[in-house]
Amino acid sequence: KLKMLYSDLVILTQKPCHTSKKKANVRVMIELSTTPVHRRDLLVKLTDDTDPYFLFTLPISEEDFQSLKVQQGLLIDFASFPQKFIDLLNLCNLEQDSDNPRFLLHLTCQSTMVEGCATFSIVETNAFKHLNHLSLRLIQGSEKEVKEYLAACLASLKAEKQALDRKFKETEDDLCRQLSYTQQ
Amino acid sequence: KLKMLYSDLVILTQKPCHTSKKKANVRVMIELSTTPVHRRDLLVKLTDDTDPYFLFTLPISEEDFQSLKVQQGLLIDFASFPQKFIDLLNLCNLEQDSDNPRFLLHLTCQSTMVEGCATFSIVETNAFKHLNHLSLRLIQGSEKEVKEYLAACLASLKAEKQALDRKFKETEDDLCRQLSYTQQ
Repeated sequence: KLKMLYSDLVILTQKPCHTSKKKANVRVMIELSTTPVHRRDLLVKLTDDTDPYFLFTLPISEEDFQSLKVQQGLLIDFASFPQKFIDLLNLCNLEQDSDNPRFLLHLTCQSTMVEGCATFSIVETNAFKHLNHLSLRLIQGSEKEVKEYLAACLASLKAEKQALDRKFKETEDDLCRQLSYTQQ
Repeated sequence: KLKMLYSDLVILTQKPCHTSKKKANVRVMIELSTTPVHRRDLLVKLTDDTDPYFLFTLPISEEDFQSLKVQQGLLIDFASFPQKFIDLLNLCNLEQDSDNPRFLLHLTCQSTMVEGCATFSIVETNAFKHLNHLSLRLIQGSEKEVKEYLAACLASLKAEKQALDRKFKETEDDLCRQLSYTQQ
């Protein structure tokens, strides 16, 4: 079972990975999958609506979270992590039109690697310093994963287009009927 | 420079490769690319609108065509090959609703391979025997090729959806205007 916890466009202030742009709109998704044996896994996914090949993911199991917790000094448990993460993303989103945003999202790639990893961070800037609230090391999607991701995009876009097609015909029929009725 | 010579849905009577279905609608595309040095290459492409991962291709250069010509006893040259190929495909398409079609398209996969090649043939059946008009050995798209193919599909579907969206809004506006005018 897969549950989408979060899916929204965010602005990354550093995305030197694939583009020369300083700012980039990127979609962040957080999915929770529950297996029959009550194992829960989080999947963090970054995609770019304007770049079909842009796909970075990080699966986070409960065990992964334990090392993340120790590494980054987190004080919450796995169950509350997704909501806390979403709260931070929302803070970034709230301030994205501000001239002097306090919370920023960064995505930086290892310069030594052509492909591979990228670090996604939520950074607060105060008068004194940059505070790193969370840093996740995302892995670039393989050819196979990008292929599967694009097939899923294509399927949902097809469904959307069909729905739009139906709505168009219904609206047109309805308005034409009203029109011919009033013209009589 | 790329020129699409043919793109149409055809019915394959044998497609045991990926499905258990006996008949399958498959899109056949023939593209001609011309390079600055006047090199011409043909690309034969088979895709399936219902299966995003289905991609078989065969690039045919002038040299490739020479061996194909010898192998299959063709009497035409490279320049007239595309049109002859299209004529055969059209013959198949004309008869696809017939109960007893004379021309059929076959796609057979090597049973010993999970992935790899498939032979695409145009077969005429007369009272005496099956006549093989053309047999092309297509290569299954790699992860990278399928990825690129899906990205192209996604881009064109996005454009189609945007055009539909615009047309919907225009039609709706236009009809609403007419309606409010007649109601006055």
